[in-house]
This record gives sequence, C-alpha cells and structure tokens, in this order.
Amino acid sequence: MKFGVVLFPSKKLQDVANSYRKRYDSHYSLIPPHLTLKEVFEATEDQIDEIAANLRKIAEETNPFTLNVTKVSSFSPANNVIYLKVEQKQELTSLYNKLHEGNLEQPTEYSFIPHITIGQRLSDDEHLDVYSQLKLVDVAHEETVDRFHLMYQLENETWTVFETFRLGKG
Amino acid sequence: MKFGVVLFPSKKLQDVANSYRKRYDSHYSLIPPHLTLKEVFEATEDQIDEIAANLRKIAEETNPFTLNVTKVSSFSPANNVIYLKVEQKQELTSLYNKLHEGNLEQPTEYSFIPHITIGQRLSDDEHLDVYSQLKLVDVAHEETVDRFHLMYQLENETWTVFETFRLGKG
Repeated sequence: MKFGVVLFPSKKLQDVANSYRKRYDSHYSLIPPHLTLKEVFEATEDQIDEIAANLRKIAEETNPFTLNVTKVSSFSPANNVIYLKVEQKQELTSLYNKLHEGNLEQPTEYSFIPHITIGQRLSDDEHLDVYSQLKLVDVAHEETVDRFHLMYQLENETWTVFETFRLGKG
Repeated sequence: MKFGVVLFPSKKLQDVANSYRKRYDSHYSLIPPHLTLKEVFEATEDQIDEIAANLRKIAEETNPFTLNVTKVSSFSPANNVIYLKVEQKQELTSLYNKLHEGNLEQPTEYSFIPHITIGQRLSDDEHLDVYSQLKLVDVAHEETVDRFHLMYQLENETWTVFETFRLGKG
C-alpha cells in the first residue's frame, strides 16, 4: 500500500486553497488541501503498525507550533506548480527531519520547501497566466498546527486517513 | 462547521465499494467509502474540542470488534440508496449509542441500520436496474474495526478528517 504524511490546515485555509484548486489543481478531488510532510512511500499493513507507533512517538515529542502562509509562489521552471508558501520555521523543519530518520528514512527527490499546492499540471502558458494573477493576491495567514495525519491511497488514487497524531500529547 | 463521525473500512473493502460508487454514488468524490456512526451535526471550533475529548473517552472504553458485510441491500422504496449491509452487532450498536448520549445527543431522522452506501440519488428505473444486478453479487467480508474518525465538511462539500480515535487504547 502507498502511504504519506500530511498536515491539513484549518477549514478556513482549506476553503481558500480549494477556491483555486478547483480550477487549477488536477488533484483537487483526490485529497483535501494539505502540506506534505512525507512523500508517498510503500509499506505493508504489518509494517504500517510499527510506523504508526513511531509517528505517535514523534507527535508526542513535538509541541503545537505556528504555521505562517506568506504568499503565492511557484516551482516553475522546474515544475509548473503554484502553491501557498509556508514559512520555513525550525519546528516544521524539525518535524520533517524526524519523519525521515531511523525506520522512516526514505530517498527524497526534493528538498523540503513547505507548501500547500493550489495549482499543478498546467501548460506553460496557463501557468504563466494563472501565476501572474495569483502572485498578486494577499494570502498572508497564521494558524496553529496541532496534529498531522498518516494517509493511504486507494485504487482510484484518492487518499483516506489512516490515523491522526496530535502534537504534544505525551 | 458541520461534523460527522464515520468508520472507514479497510482499503480492500473501500476499493470494492468505490468500484460501484464511481458509477452509482453522487458522493463518490466527496468522501471515501464509510459507515456513518453519527450523522452530520453543527458545532463551533470551541465546542468541537470538548466533543473530541468525549469521543476519545468513548474510543478508550470500546474494544476493537469484528465487522461483517453480509450482502448488497437497498433502502428502497423509502430511499433509492443501495448499500453493503453490515451485520448489526452488539459492539457496533453500543458504539452508536455512546455517540448519541450526553452532550453528543442529537435528533436522528433514521434508526441505526449499519451500512456502507455504494449507490444513491438514482432514478427509480436506474435503481431497479442496478439493484437487481448488485443484489446477486457475493460481497461477504469480515474485518476488524479498531478506529473511527471525526470529520468536518469544507465549503466544497468534501470531508476532511479532524481526528482519528483508536479503540481500546485507554
């Protein structure tokens, strides 16, 4: 099975993200707006119980922290991905690192740039057009993160939550 | 905000359910296949913390139990809803009851008939046609339930998980 670890922002921020994703993100109907903490990895149902126990421990050791969205940005020209840029704070990086250590280690194609995708798989022209508009929008937003989620993917490519981990509940 | 409480069956059963939902269930893209334990209710973000604490306590007091899918059934003629019928066991009814007591009380339009919807909002003709085929399918299945989920609804009507509650972890 395919698993991944994400943060879901507040309903408010998810609604904002979805107002763009509906038009510009081909994954709109597969998963709610999210910040990926750990890219997709393969695990069996037996392995995942051990991994979940590990994630539970990491959550207990991590205190809730503030998440700041600063602006709309893009991974172009590498990738025509438009996203809400999330400030790279020590707490977030530390959580990311813990999710890639020990038995959670995995090869990572990208370095960690915390973001919430709002547009992807756009043609160059469409990307340029949409991004030139969206980068002018004020999306500044602050909220508290107090949980993250282990997800798994179904055959139809949609994602279901396996377990929620609340921060600092040790 | 709108909340609800559901069970997600295993990936295997979700994949089976989705193979039908894709064609017959208008809610296919709004939420993964699920068994509703508590119908939609309104709560503020402040109230939900108290409710979540309550759900945590209920989960701790409830042991994992076996879920049996027996056959394909329908709520017709009352409703053109086709579903996977889930055996009404004492553990499931008891969990449902706990989720409707005290500060979780809410008016319920329907009595509790545990089911996983695979088709809805079908015309009478379509319902008759689809149901006459599906009721012949052998969907007998058994699995262990060890968690349930508190969900909330976004403006686009899709559902996001607020928190997972693992059974018997008190």
